[in-house]
Amino acid sequence: MQQRILKFDGAAIVSAASVVGKYEYEGPLGDCFDLHDATEKFGMKTWEKAESEMQRLAFNTALAKVSANERRVDALFAGDLLNQCVGSAYGLLDFDIPYFGLYGACSTAAEGLLLAAATVSAGYFETVGAVTSSHYCSAERQYRTPLEYGSQRSPTAQWTVTGAGAFLVRNEGKVRITEALPGIVVEKGINDASNMGAAMAPAAADTILRYFQLSGKSPEEFDLIVTGDLGWEGGDILCDLLLAEGLDIASRYNDCGMMIYNREGQDMHAGGSGCGCSAVVLSSHLCPRIERGDLRHILFLGTGAMMSPSSIQQGEAIPGVAHLLHICNEKYAGEGEKWIL
Amino acid sequence: MQQRILKFDGAAIVSAASVVGKYEYEGPLGDCFDLHDATEKFGMKTWEKAESEMQRLAFNTALAKVSANERRVDALFAGDLLNQCVGSAYGLLDFDIPYFGLYGACSTAAEGLLLAAATVSAGYFETVGAVTSSHYCSAERQYRTPLEYGSQRSPTAQWTVTGAGAFLVRNEGKVRITEALPGIVVEKGINDASNMGAAMAPAAADTILRYFQLSGKSPEEFDLIVTGDLGWEGGDILCDLLLAEGLDIASRYNDCGMMIYNREGQDMHAGGSGCGCSAVVLSSHLCPRIERGDLRHILFLGTGAMMSPSSIQQGEAIPGVAHLLHICNEKYAGEGEKWIL
Repeated sequence: MQQRILKFDGAAIVSAASVVGKYEYEGPLGDCFDLHDATEKFGMKTWEKAESEMQRLAFNTALAKVSANERRVDALFAGDLLNQCVGSAYGLLDFDIPYFGLYGACSTAAEGLLLAAATVSAGYFETVGAVTSSHYCSAERQYRTPLEYGSQRSPTAQWTVTGAGAFLVRNEGKVRITEALPGIVVEKGINDASNMGAAMAPAAADTILRYFQLSGKSPEEFDLIVTGDLGWEGGDILCDLLLAEGLDIASRYNDCGMMIYNREGQDMHAGGSGCGCSAVVLSSHLCPRIERGDLRHILFLGTGAMMSPSSIQQGEAIPGVAHLLHICNEKYAGEGEKWIL
Repeated sequence: MQQRILKFDGAAIVSAASVVGKYEYEGPLGDCFDLHDATEKFGMKTWEKAESEMQRLAFNTALAKVSANERRVDALFAGDLLNQCVGSAYGLLDFDIPYFGLYGACSTAAEGLLLAAATVSAGYFETVGAVTSSHYCSAERQYRTPLEYGSQRSPTAQWTVTGAGAFLVRNEGKVRITEALPGIVVEKGINDASNMGAAMAPAAADTILRYFQLSGKSPEEFDLIVTGDLGWEGGDILCDLLLAEGLDIASRYNDCGMMIYNREGQDMHAGGSGCGCSAVVLSSHLCPRIERGDLRHILFLGTGAMMSPSSIQQGEAIPGVAHLLHICNEKYAGEGEKWIL
């Protein structure tokens, strides 16, 4: 196995912004987010255009926070859940910036940041944007049923986060991306489209196990190990899968899909999901905490379920993928030296 | 404008393979392709699974050509046209290789090769695979109408190529990728989904103009300037758009969508399209010609139309993108030195 942890000498998140909908704003992290619209329409006529508008607003806000002009951005890595990723293609159309379209399902925030960090650290680009989104209303009618049906949801179902997150990555900054481990697509026979957490947990377990094997580190060296959107169901499965392999991460573990909603008060069943879930939690809750030094080192895993409605209808199981980023406060980045193999 | 041409010191296509369907095999390049199946089902029950199977076969063939084991491959960049890119997610599931999902529509071959070259040249990976596909039957029913309808096609419509192309990129080899210029998403008001060539031509023109402005080179320095799938309609528009800007590429220009079918004999209307189009023409026709030295320097542009059926139904125009690669025979790579700014 030639797989290796990617090391980045110079990659940092210098700006991050988020745009969310009603339920995310009403959740425990509501005050963190930059913009919200309780109608979730953002002034647009369709849910798809609303999702695109969220991306545009999020990226513009990320630029504005560091008084940057779009002309300073050398490339964009972007993607979303909509068919043919039109949320990103239309949302970022206003910007004359070279565009790399991604499809990583809900792992897109991590995939985009990984490629942004890699291309910036290698010197190909000075400033790179990573943008992603999801919208409950556009996702429901595409993946499941039109909202008007009022379908009953299964207890293991997650709620697609209405939100967009945007990041700017440059060579230097307080929130450093020092390592990454790209995910392998894993499929363990789960074919229940209302239980994405179970489908993605084995992929997250695979990446986490490979990371600790390759790095020789232990979970205790991190203040937080956070997955994108396994939710309460998938999060439990992940901890169990790792424990069976002798790795106990429970004391360090959390999940963006658990953090974004109130489990009791909001009735979101198994928690949040969607590309926007990990993107807005990382951009508006975790990045500021890393910047302040409240969190020194974290492992952030974007988790994605790579099926489509057609593949589910054709009886296929759901493949998952999980990309890992090691993000830390620059003051503590030096500590990483002792870890480098 | 900070945009710059990316330079790669060490990136080469060391293996390339293709799998095609009936009409591609019957076309002028038929003998070049590695595998074909006249039923276009590749032993599978659904068109979607057939498309996945083509990717698996293409990647396996690319590995076999250089007697490489999948364990030697550090990462895959892959994508396709199917909703949620399931052609790639399922097609490459058998391989335990870190996976980066892309969505670049028909520009995916170029986008994948660009990121493969960038990550290999920067030393992140030793061997990277880039894989993409399209299938006429899965694309027709997803983008247009079920095949059984027998809908009449417009004269400007293109025929989605049934084909998959796979590439292996390493540090050294005869077919060098020396430069790249990522595309900017351009939308000029074309909203006719039966005229993709017209929608993508402005994006190709934008990238080609930027390349010649930034590099200071002239079209005469290339044996071939080839776009992915503008077809006869879009190819004419591209040459006209460039001529209006004072750039005459006509004597050097060709398009994979024009090359893959017989214009007169096969009645494919405006030519071939789809992710597989540029992937199979590059892998099985152009790469061998570059390897032999028949072609010294070429500019290869993957061209993609980034709309979805929903965005078309909602009245949106079609955004296009075009990623450029400068590919050359290693013997002539040194010639490039004089061009580097």
